[in-house]
Amino acid sequence: MQGTVMQSIQQVASVTFRYPIFFTRDLFASENPLLGEVIAAGRDTGVPSKAIFVVDHGLLEQNHGLLDSIEAYARLHSTSFNLVCPPLVVEGGEQVKNDPANVASVHRGIHEFGIDRHAYVVAVGGGAVIDMVGYAAATAHRGVRLIRVPTTVLSQNDSGVGVKNSVNAFGKKNFLGTFAPPYAVINDFTFLTTLSDRDWRSGISEAIKVALLKDSDFFTFIEEHAHELNARDMTAMEWLVYRCAQLHLEHISTSGDPFEFGSSRPLDFGHWAAHKLEQLTNYSLRHGEAVAIGIALDSTYAHLLDLLPEDHWRRILHVITAVALPVYVPELSRDLAERVDSRSVLSGLNEFREHLGGQLTIMLLERIGQGVEVHEMDEDLISKSITLLKDFQANDREANIHGGVAWPRTSAAVPLPSAS
Amino acid sequence: MQGTVMQSIQQVASVTFRYPIFFTRDLFASENPLLGEVIAAGRDTGVPSKAIFVVDHGLLEQNHGLLDSIEAYARLHSTSFNLVCPPLVVEGGEQVKNDPANVASVHRGIHEFGIDRHAYVVAVGGGAVIDMVGYAAATAHRGVRLIRVPTTVLSQNDSGVGVKNSVNAFGKKNFLGTFAPPYAVINDFTFLTTLSDRDWRSGISEAIKVALLKDSDFFTFIEEHAHELNARDMTAMEWLVYRCAQLHLEHISTSGDPFEFGSSRPLDFGHWAAHKLEQLTNYSLRHGEAVAIGIALDSTYAHLLDLLPEDHWRRILHVITAVALPVYVPELSRDLAERVDSRSVLSGLNEFREHLGGQLTIMLLERIGQGVEVHEMDEDLISKSITLLKDFQANDREANIHGGVAWPRTSAAVPLPSAS
Repeated sequence: MQGTVMQSIQQVASVTFRYPIFFTRDLFASENPLLGEVIAAGRDTGVPSKAIFVVDHGLLEQNHGLLDSIEAYARLHSTSFNLVCPPLVVEGGEQVKNDPANVASVHRGIHEFGIDRHAYVVAVGGGAVIDMVGYAAATAHRGVRLIRVPTTVLSQNDSGVGVKNSVNAFGKKNFLGTFAPPYAVINDFTFLTTLSDRDWRSGISEAIKVALLKDSDFFTFIEEHAHELNARDMTAMEWLVYRCAQLHLEHISTSGDPFEFGSSRPLDFGHWAAHKLEQLTNYSLRHGEAVAIGIALDSTYAHLLDLLPEDHWRRILHVITAVALPVYVPELSRDLAERVDSRSVLSGLNEFREHLGGQLTIMLLERIGQGVEVHEMDEDLISKSITLLKDFQANDREANIHGGVAWPRTSAAVPLPSAS
Repeated sequence: MQGTVMQSIQQVASVTFRYPIFFTRDLFASENPLLGEVIAAGRDTGVPSKAIFVVDHGLLEQNHGLLDSIEAYARLHSTSFNLVCPPLVVEGGEQVKNDPANVASVHRGIHEFGIDRHAYVVAVGGGAVIDMVGYAAATAHRGVRLIRVPTTVLSQNDSGVGVKNSVNAFGKKNFLGTFAPPYAVINDFTFLTTLSDRDWRSGISEAIKVALLKDSDFFTFIEEHAHELNARDMTAMEWLVYRCAQLHLEHISTSGDPFEFGSSRPLDFGHWAAHKLEQLTNYSLRHGEAVAIGIALDSTYAHLLDLLPEDHWRRILHVITAVALPVYVPELSRDLAERVDSRSVLSGLNEFREHLGGQLTIMLLERIGQGVEVHEMDEDLISKSITLLKDFQANDREANIHGGVAWPRTSAAVPLPSAS
């Protein structure tokens, strides 16, 4: 029998993940029972569960009393959970994913305070902090319970509701990470009121993206409410966050590949260029801004390929600029002639392929609401698309200086559906 | 609506994992096509897949030509995979899980040689190396493909076929880790012939364990072939490895909780004391030896509790000693009076609970082939059990000096079922 297979066993095992996503306001107000109830419901012993909080430093400037509120809330809900130490404050933004000391400090807290697989790490902050804390929580004891409290538009409607976590390593974005669903997600809309205009807008691009792939009515909603969104109308924004999160979650549960064993990642529409642009701008470009440009680029490419009709393409560029997101930055044109140069956006195609693995698979659009996958992209056509976007952005700025684009403004309120 | 849940979404997503476990001999012999075929079958592009190998240094002493064989095999199978660098050699044994530099070096290899989610890390070695490489592979790009080639009895029949990986941190065994199924497992029986007697025997305790929990016929097989197993009969050992792996895999796929969200971990029978004893002996005790003692302890406890009949209990202690595994070490008695002392084995109960999370859940036996879970253990009864084991081991040694225990020896060959 030398040199052959003597026997084999084919193993098959299924795992079902369940987690709730709550939408609330003023999560840490004394009268809001939600967080206490979520933790109490998960108790399997008679004693309060242990919890440690990790808070994004970027929040504290606009939310002076946040740490005190968390501690006061914990005292009030001491029958459901025990805050085992003061909240750990970490820096916000992408930098928190670059320094391995941050993951180590969350691991140390889990170790020192005896957080077990049924105890809690509560992450409060933007997408980068949620990603980093999620990676630490997922790898300690093979996963302790993570409650995500995302505080930006982007993290509430996109990254914060999904099943991934990550940190950066070797200069590569998200090089380290796992697939690990959270225990619960709590989207507190009140945090959105304290965002800078830039962070407010940045999250809108993921909503545009998912609308373009999945739901043309939602795209029309964004078009019709671009003015309110720009004016920081909370009713429009709450609906945008809710609907975007819902579409994202539907995709994860129905795609058939939530842990991405295949080469296809439909929700990464516009992301190959976006990831590269973030890196080329040393992360001075926000993820959402980079995604807006990535969407504009791949939509333009699809249009030049005769895939996406012209009127659809124009609506896409207009909605991006209407919510004051960019469609172009100079880094997009850098070293375009030198295609193998890692300073060119074109090198992002191969880096994207490497991160996903297997065959290059890029999502394009055939119309608003309907994506289509391709397995190659023509570099000349990408260059042409970039030139077109550069011109568009220049003209659009001109248009804005001379009175701006006239967008329909509807005054219809868009309330969330009532709680089930 | 302040202070209430405005809306919630209940997310549900399922993931199905499939992976094959092959049993072979002489995996890296030029005439064995298995590994090349496994990799070729997973290709989704026309080019050979990239692979890096990580090899347990402990193997090289008994397998001088192993690294050369791997390189020669790769040259022969260059149409299916491309060995992107010479095999990375790491130290063997538990120490490989203590030094974070090992995980970092596997990560660096994955980064430098562009191993993506569809490319391969092949881990060749004992359970500790498989655990460490598995953790590194599972966390790079959220999981690259891991092919495990376990080389010890213990890793071939137990840890190497399951869905966990880990390294140690903060002095805690397996503090860091994830649940991540391998891409494939290849058990090469030839490696078993080069094991030390101690390593050969150590893996038998996990087979005894799973037999006690799941299959009394398999337990009888081990009893009847104890002599052959001691005499390093390969036919008996191959069946033991195959059947143990099969029962382990069946448990994972049918337990309903492969990622252990609950507090129950049935396959950890005997492990609360085993983990602690490994630590108390500074890992001079092998995992399998510690498990043998843990099985003896919890079986004795179950017997003193009037749960396990006396004849079953005696058969268990006898089969452990018949395969020359220990039922007692002096560390088991250390500081028993000081129960809160972390130097006492009793502190292992709480550490076990903490690692699993939630309520203490310990598997005991009500008969051979049938486990039963309890949620508390009486410390006086544990102490009594330890005293009993100390006496048993002393008497057994005496018995062995005066001619040994008479075990039935069957000569029936036990071939593996033929390959399907």
